[in-house]
Amino acid sequence: MIGRLNHVAIAVPDLGAATALYRDTLGATVTPPKAEPDHGVTVVFIELPNTKIELLEPLGENSPIAAFLAKSPSGGIHHVCYEVDDILAARDRLKASGARVLGTGEPKIGAHGKPVLFLHPKDFNGTLVELEQA
Amino acid sequence: MIGRLNHVAIAVPDLGAATALYRDTLGATVTPPKAEPDHGVTVVFIELPNTKIELLEPLGENSPIAAFLAKSPSGGIHHVCYEVDDILAARDRLKASGARVLGTGEPKIGAHGKPVLFLHPKDFNGTLVELEQA
Repeated sequence: MIGRLNHVAIAVPDLGAATALYRDTLGATVTPPKAEPDHGVTVVFIELPNTKIELLEPLGENSPIAAFLAKSPSGGIHHVCYEVDDILAARDRLKASGARVLGTGEPKIGAHGKPVLFLHPKDFNGTLVELEQA
Repeated sequence: MIGRLNHVAIAVPDLGAATALYRDTLGATVTPPKAEPDHGVTVVFIELPNTKIELLEPLGENSPIAAFLAKSPSGGIHHVCYEVDDILAARDRLKASGARVLGTGEPKIGAHGKPVLFLHPKDFNGTLVELEQA
């Protein structure tokens, strides 16, 4: 069911400093920051040959990563995102297996403009899993 | 400098249960378990089209992931591994920039039979980074 690893998301407290770290210290290609007010984050992508790393900085009040950074102020790996061909079929299969889908269970349009769902980390070995329709 | 994302490693308390979860619930291809006594872990790989997820279960005493699982008993994302062309050149560049290389600073032969180094998570936004010579 799951296909490509679309991205690994890392929450960071300071996107400018994190961009410099990945660009200058690790020598990676980093995209310009993009504010995603609907998702409560500002994002840059580290473009690797086979996938990407998404660096997330909180934006505005009620950012979905604010609690994570309150607990881990220097940042940390926040989630992994797998691609699926059919997000509704994936959701139904997961729910039938007993996995919990976060929120209403209806896909939302994610930061990449595609339908996404998040799965409860307690059902996946402490890993927050995002599914994105490819 | 950094190239492909070689893998994302997830520490799990029960490799059999985690294998079933990724194989049956998420529909992924999972390799048979392989004991790596020199590295204190038993490993399976989730083979995705563009990269792999490494599930790690502690093996023996002094497993390098024992402390992580003591803190997060249900598991969690442990590290990300980036490929580099020349691990000694990468290490020297990183040390010159002030990043801390764990251990002696000399590459060890990792679970894939290639030279690896780990970088201090405090220098990379709370993310344990492994570098592997491609």
